[in-house]
Amino acid sequence: MNPFNIAIIGCGTVGGGTAKIINEINSDLNDRAGRSINLVKIVELNAPVAMDRFNLPATLFCGGGKAITPAEAESYIHEILNNPEIHLVVETIGGTSDFVHDMCIKTCQAGKHLVSANKALLAERGKDILEAAEKNKVAIGFEAAVCGAIPIIKTIKESFTGDEIISVSGILNGTSNYILSRMLDEKLGFEQALKLAQEAGYAEADPTLDISGGDAAHKLIILIKLIFGLDVSMEQIKYQGIRNISATDIDYAKEIDAALKLICYAKRDGDTVFGTVCPMMVKNDNFLSGIKGATNAVRTINKYSGKHILIGAGAGSAETASSIVADIIFTARFSEKMQHNLPSNKLEFKDLRYFTFPFVITFETEDRPGITGLVTTEIGKQLVNIYTVTHNRQIQDRALFSIETQPCTLKQIHAAVQEIKRSGILKSEPKVFPILF
Amino acid sequence: MNPFNIAIIGCGTVGGGTAKIINEINSDLNDRAGRSINLVKIVELNAPVAMDRFNLPATLFCGGGKAITPAEAESYIHEILNNPEIHLVVETIGGTSDFVHDMCIKTCQAGKHLVSANKALLAERGKDILEAAEKNKVAIGFEAAVCGAIPIIKTIKESFTGDEIISVSGILNGTSNYILSRMLDEKLGFEQALKLAQEAGYAEADPTLDISGGDAAHKLIILIKLIFGLDVSMEQIKYQGIRNISATDIDYAKEIDAALKLICYAKRDGDTVFGTVCPMMVKNDNFLSGIKGATNAVRTINKYSGKHILIGAGAGSAETASSIVADIIFTARFSEKMQHNLPSNKLEFKDLRYFTFPFVITFETEDRPGITGLVTTEIGKQLVNIYTVTHNRQIQDRALFSIETQPCTLKQIHAAVQEIKRSGILKSEPKVFPILF
Repeated sequence: MNPFNIAIIGCGTVGGGTAKIINEINSDLNDRAGRSINLVKIVELNAPVAMDRFNLPATLFCGGGKAITPAEAESYIHEILNNPEIHLVVETIGGTSDFVHDMCIKTCQAGKHLVSANKALLAERGKDILEAAEKNKVAIGFEAAVCGAIPIIKTIKESFTGDEIISVSGILNGTSNYILSRMLDEKLGFEQALKLAQEAGYAEADPTLDISGGDAAHKLIILIKLIFGLDVSMEQIKYQGIRNISATDIDYAKEIDAALKLICYAKRDGDTVFGTVCPMMVKNDNFLSGIKGATNAVRTINKYSGKHILIGAGAGSAETASSIVADIIFTARFSEKMQHNLPSNKLEFKDLRYFTFPFVITFETEDRPGITGLVTTEIGKQLVNIYTVTHNRQIQDRALFSIETQPCTLKQIHAAVQEIKRSGILKSEPKVFPILF
Repeated sequence: MNPFNIAIIGCGTVGGGTAKIINEINSDLNDRAGRSINLVKIVELNAPVAMDRFNLPATLFCGGGKAITPAEAESYIHEILNNPEIHLVVETIGGTSDFVHDMCIKTCQAGKHLVSANKALLAERGKDILEAAEKNKVAIGFEAAVCGAIPIIKTIKESFTGDEIISVSGILNGTSNYILSRMLDEKLGFEQALKLAQEAGYAEADPTLDISGGDAAHKLIILIKLIFGLDVSMEQIKYQGIRNISATDIDYAKEIDAALKLICYAKRDGDTVFGTVCPMMVKNDNFLSGIKGATNAVRTINKYSGKHILIGAGAGSAETASSIVADIIFTARFSEKMQHNLPSNKLEFKDLRYFTFPFVITFETEDRPGITGLVTTEIGKQLVNIYTVTHNRQIQDRALFSIETQPCTLKQIHAAVQEIKRSGILKSEPKVFPILF
C-alpha cells in the first residue's frame, strides 16, 4: 500500500494522544485512507515521560527514547524537514513563538502537509502560514484547533458547501463554561468556582487565557476566517471574559429564562462582519443555554438549511487527538485535491459596540422611591424600548434590579448609562449583557 | 474551468430545491468545487409547476418546460444516461420501484456519479446499488437521505475517521417527534396531535410510514451499514412506532425526569450489533430529550472522542437540498479519490429483545391492596432489580402505576409479565419502554 509517513513534533497531551490512536487502530486507519499510515518519527524533549504516558515504543522517538536537549530537538526537526520520505508533520508544540511559527512555514516550504492543534498560533500568526501552504500547494489541517473533538472545521469546509452561513455562535471555552455551570448549579461565587475548576483539572494554575476570553477569541478568529474569509486581530475582537460575573448576574439570567454563558458570536450582514466574545444571557430555548460543564457547542444559522448545532468534547487528550487523526486521514486521501486557500473577502469587521441586540442592564442604586422611574426615563430618552424591569433585590441600603431592552446598540445603552451616572444614584458600574435568542 | 455537469431526475420538493440552490449560488459553488458546476438537464413530468415553484428557466427542462408523459421521461432519462458529457445524476424521484432502482444501477454502469435522497430505496434495495457503484468506480452521495440537513453521513465518513463509533442514537423522524412534542406540551392525545401535525404540514394524509417507525428504520439501516458495515433488513429491525403512546405514558416519562421519544438506536458489542427503533423514555440529562418539534438529532458515543450531538432540520425543501448540493461539490472535488465501498463486516444483528437496558413498565390493574406486592414479587423472581415504583393513579376501579427497573433483558420482563397476567389482575396489556440515559 502507498505509504503516508508522519512525524509528530511535541508529544504532550495532544501529540501523545495522536501517537496513541495511530498505534492502537493503525489497520483501521490504513483501510480508511486507502494508504499505509505510518508514524515514523516523534520529537519530544522528555521522551521517557511520553513513552510511559502514551504507551509508545522507544524506537519511534528521535534519540531512541532518551530525553533530549532543545538543541538536539532542533536538529532532529531539521532532519525531518529535509527527509523526502515524510509527507506530513503534526505540530503539537503549542505557543506562538518564532520557533514554532518558523517551523510551520518551513514544513510548508519543504512540501510537507501540516496538521496543527495550535489555535493561538493560527489566530495570531496564521496568515503567513496559510499563505506558505497555498504557495507550496500543501494542505493544512486544523480541526483540532477549534473545539477539540467537534468536527466544526470539516463541517464548514466540506458539509456546508451547498449553503451560506449567516451567523455562528458558540461556547468555545470549556473552562469558562465549567466555572459558570458550577456557579449556577451550586450558587458559588466566581473565585470559589474557579478554585474548583483548578482542582478538577479544568483550569490551569494561571487561568488568564481561558477566563479572559482570549482562548475563545482565538477560536472565533479562526472561524471568522474560515466562514467569512476575513482576517481579524485579537485587538479588533475586544473580547471580554467571565471574571466579573457575579452570583447575582447568574440569578438575573434565570429570572429571564436564560443562562449566562461566555459566547463567541459572529454574523455577516452585507459587507460587514459583526463579531464578539462576551458573556451573554442565552435564552433557554437556545440549546447553548443547556451546555453544561466543559462541553463545547457551536450553532450556525445557514441560509438554506437553517439552524445547526454541534455538541461535543472541547478538550482532552484522546478527544483532541481524534480530530488530528481525522485530518491526517483526510489529507492522506485527498491532499492532491484539497482546497489550499481559505476564502479571502474584503469585508469590514465591527465589534460589539455596533451590534443591534437586546440587552440586559443590571443596576445597583440607592434604595428609595423614584429610582426606577429615573432610570427607565433615561433609557427611553435614548429611544430604547424597555421589555421588562426585573425583581428588585434590597441589600442593606442598596437596590439591585435589571432591565431587559428591545434590540438596540451599545452606543444607545452607554449614552443612557452616562446620564444615569450623572444623577449620582448608582452604587457601582452597571453591567451590560447581550441577550442571545 | 473544468466543467462538472449535472442532471436532476425528479423536480419535486427536494429535486427542485436542489436546482434552486445551484441556480442561486452557482458562482460560490464553482469556487468551492474548483470546477464549473453546471446544471444541464432536469427531467420532470410536471415541468410547469416545478418552474413556477422553484423559479427555474424552461430551457433546463427536457421537453422545454412543457408537461411530459412517463414514456417521454423514460426516453429523456435514457438520453441522459447515454450522454458522456453528464458527470453526475441526482435521483429525486423517490420510492422503491424497479424503475428507480434500475435507473440508479444504470447510472453507475454508465460511469456517472449518483446522488440520492431516497432513504427507502437505499435501506431496502441499496446493496445492489452500492455494489454497482463500487464496480464502476463512481461515487454515491446520500447525505440527504438521513436527517435532511444534518451532515451526519459526511461526519461519519470524513470526520470520525480517527475514532471508532461505539453507539448511535437519534431522533430521525421529525413527524413523530412533532406529534410527541405537542402531546407533551399541550397534554393532547395521539389522534389529536396527529391531526395538528397534518394541518401543519408535518404529517402526510397517510402518515403510516412516519408514525409506524418505518421511515426511522430506513435511516437506521443506512447508519448501521455506514458505521458498522452490516446489512440489516426492515424485518430484522422489528421497528415500533408511536401510535400506541398515551398521554399517561408521557406523564410517567415526566415523573422519572424523562421525555418519551421515538429513538433509533444501534450499538456494537464485539461481533454483535444491537439495533432498534422504538419509543424510549429519554432522561432529561440526555440532549435528545430536549429536541422539540420536527427537529432531528443524532448522538454518537465514540471510543476516543466521547459524546457527539448533531442537531438540525430533518426535512424541508431547501434544507434537504443543501445536503444534496454539498454531495455534488464533494464529488466534483474528490470523485477520483472517494472511497466507493462502504465497510462490510461479518457481524451478527440482534433486535430489542436481546438488549440489556433499564426499562419502564406501566401497569393497569384492579385497584385493591396487595397488587404492588404481587407485581413486584413476580418481577423479582426473574432476577430483575426494581429501581422505583411510581405514583399510583386511581381511575374508577383501576389503578395505574409504573415500575422502573435496573438494566435487564426484555426476555426477563416478558417472563414476569406472563406470570402477572396469569394472576388475572391486569386490566390491559402492560407497556414496556427502554430508558435511555
